[in-house]
Amino acid sequence: MEHKKRFDFLSTVSPTYVEEVLNSYTPDAKVELVRIDDACGRVFAEDVLAPEDLPYFDRSLVDGYAVVSKNSQGASETNPVMLQKKGNVKVGMVPQISVEDGECVYVNTGAYIPPGADSVVMQEFTREMESVVEILKPVYRGENIIQRGEDVKNGQIVFKKGKVITPFDIGVCAALGITELIVFKKPTVGIMSTGDEIVSPFDNAKEGKVRDVNGYVLFTLFRRLGGQIYYVGIARDEIEDVKVKLSMLRDSDMFCVSGGSSKGERDLIIEAVKELGGDILFHGVNIKPGKPFFYGLLWGKPLFGLPGHPLSCIAVTYRFVLPVFFKMLGFESRVPKTLKGILTTNVPSTYGVEEYVNVIVKEVDDKIFVEPLFAKSATISILSQSSGYIVVDQDREGYEKEEEVRVFLYEI
Amino acid sequence: MEHKKRFDFLSTVSPTYVEEVLNSYTPDAKVELVRIDDACGRVFAEDVLAPEDLPYFDRSLVDGYAVVSKNSQGASETNPVMLQKKGNVKVGMVPQISVEDGECVYVNTGAYIPPGADSVVMQEFTREMESVVEILKPVYRGENIIQRGEDVKNGQIVFKKGKVITPFDIGVCAALGITELIVFKKPTVGIMSTGDEIVSPFDNAKEGKVRDVNGYVLFTLFRRLGGQIYYVGIARDEIEDVKVKLSMLRDSDMFCVSGGSSKGERDLIIEAVKELGGDILFHGVNIKPGKPFFYGLLWGKPLFGLPGHPLSCIAVTYRFVLPVFFKMLGFESRVPKTLKGILTTNVPSTYGVEEYVNVIVKEVDDKIFVEPLFAKSATISILSQSSGYIVVDQDREGYEKEEEVRVFLYEI
Repeated sequence: MEHKKRFDFLSTVSPTYVEEVLNSYTPDAKVELVRIDDACGRVFAEDVLAPEDLPYFDRSLVDGYAVVSKNSQGASETNPVMLQKKGNVKVGMVPQISVEDGECVYVNTGAYIPPGADSVVMQEFTREMESVVEILKPVYRGENIIQRGEDVKNGQIVFKKGKVITPFDIGVCAALGITELIVFKKPTVGIMSTGDEIVSPFDNAKEGKVRDVNGYVLFTLFRRLGGQIYYVGIARDEIEDVKVKLSMLRDSDMFCVSGGSSKGERDLIIEAVKELGGDILFHGVNIKPGKPFFYGLLWGKPLFGLPGHPLSCIAVTYRFVLPVFFKMLGFESRVPKTLKGILTTNVPSTYGVEEYVNVIVKEVDDKIFVEPLFAKSATISILSQSSGYIVVDQDREGYEKEEEVRVFLYEI
Repeated sequence: MEHKKRFDFLSTVSPTYVEEVLNSYTPDAKVELVRIDDACGRVFAEDVLAPEDLPYFDRSLVDGYAVVSKNSQGASETNPVMLQKKGNVKVGMVPQISVEDGECVYVNTGAYIPPGADSVVMQEFTREMESVVEILKPVYRGENIIQRGEDVKNGQIVFKKGKVITPFDIGVCAALGITELIVFKKPTVGIMSTGDEIVSPFDNAKEGKVRDVNGYVLFTLFRRLGGQIYYVGIARDEIEDVKVKLSMLRDSDMFCVSGGSSKGERDLIIEAVKELGGDILFHGVNIKPGKPFFYGLLWGKPLFGLPGHPLSCIAVTYRFVLPVFFKMLGFESRVPKTLKGILTTNVPSTYGVEEYVNVIVKEVDDKIFVEPLFAKSATISILSQSSGYIVVDQDREGYEKEEEVRVFLYEI
């Protein structure tokens, strides 16, 4: 037994090795042009420069009188400054008048500041007479004005390549008149489930069969995160069927093949990949759950051999597949969403193996508590309740109750 | 001036009052049936009960021999227990044989446990001879088996009404053969911008005009969060045009009208709403930015009068509009995403006014720092850089540097 166990351990690679192999893959990023209406959630494929100043002219921030600020010096309620009222500028109009010393022009919020004026006195600090206006308070140069280019300067880099586009970014683009954006194309993920026991969710699963969970979780997750999905369904445990279905996914940017819980099934998928001309780069990783994970290149593109058990499949997907997928999405750097909290119970773990434990995060009295959920990897419902997972490094034998741990959130 | 200021203050309502008014609105939730393929991100409109046990039969978690556990008692490498090999059960098959005392049956991972067996000995703890198998280690009852109903029990509530549907939930539904779900209909948000100075992002904004930022931010945001959008474009500052465009939005579940930075423009929108038979419930809120915010009911549905300045518009949207929208989406309770961090600078604020300040969140050496970004509310680019905002309560005069504050995140 000793011998067998040692051999088993030696046949797996370390998570660090897996990361090295995966990092060495550089996706071939493709780009496309989209209208800003459809660009939210996509990723800028190049730096975006401002084509003009924003705002394009000095604008009033209030309803009031555009003045030459030095004219207002010393103004007070009891000792107002009198200025000649010269007219007004409505929003949306280009001013046809200018403001000289001793003059003022009424402006609405958002209006173009007439030449000569350098500030606006709010209406409530003025008293309007027939043809003159009493200024009751001094203003400083630039007061109540947003200046040309104050928000964004012509030529300035507004967005960096690799940034995910938010609704606010769309607003900035709209303001600058940028109506189309170069974004990274959505990577296509080819998804296949395998196993003679697997049937569609639309089928009866009573006669020894189980329905396809991994295929559905994966395609929903990758689509949610911005991928294009090819889902080819379920391959039987026959080398020809696996080959035929993999070939149907050939145009994908990456492949996720799940299933093969037993060794024989996995070997069959690996054999099929090899017969199609693919290379297997590793098989078996020193992690729990997820040990049967294998990885290779097929038609020059990453192929992830995910374990059949749902919890194992998801652990490997979050820990190893998503970083590659995010690189394909075009993210320059993507830091996983994490938070820290205090463990509510001990988490035992095996020394020498990197372990993943699902957890619920709860905030009580401004403190964040992390409650581990233990379950067999063949289950699935526990994932619906989990906020995320914690990682027990291979050089640790678990965590103690009340230790602070970092939670990797599932919602990303 | 004293008098004027006091009057101004009195004419606004408090944020608490606003919340009361908004909470009193109960949306008329509509539901629809969607396939699980399209249900991710939607909200369960009723509790979901499991239609069967999951798994539906006892399954093996490993490759090995199904045995009667008590037969394995005392087994060891040096003193193995010998069991008669009776055959095997492949995954996906219903067993045609049973396991009696003294017998064992080979099972693959995922296979249906044959009747009589109550546990599985992993293959590596066995030695296979001709027709007998040596068991080298005892197993306890249930070991290496996932039992019928262990993941989910028939009749159990798997999902509660009001839960947002995640990829994992889709997996659970797939496993249970639930292929269609009753979800809340996407609420439709009618969006209109107003102002003679506002032009489309596709237009030139140089001659005193500015492009429509709010309309674009709002429709992108609400669509991103799960809404259906009617965007009617820009109404001129004429009561008839506002009425015509509002009427085009009549079928919406709520209305977001932005613009009217100056008092005259706002009054015009309010007049149009009244002429269409709507009620204005408040106008002017004691917040900064966002004071011109007004709210009413038009055709029995909420109408939000959002300020024209982008920063003000967004502040009001996040603070007051989204909670109503989330109620329409069907969320039972939605806690805003927040995190806590340490302020990097003082944040001054006016006593008696609830203030919103945009911030950047940075994690340095495991500590979270919150850096305020100050900007005029007529700007927009600052929003693209912000992680979220902090709220300075009306009974505070700001925050001190190094105080711990709660950040409301923009990404939700």
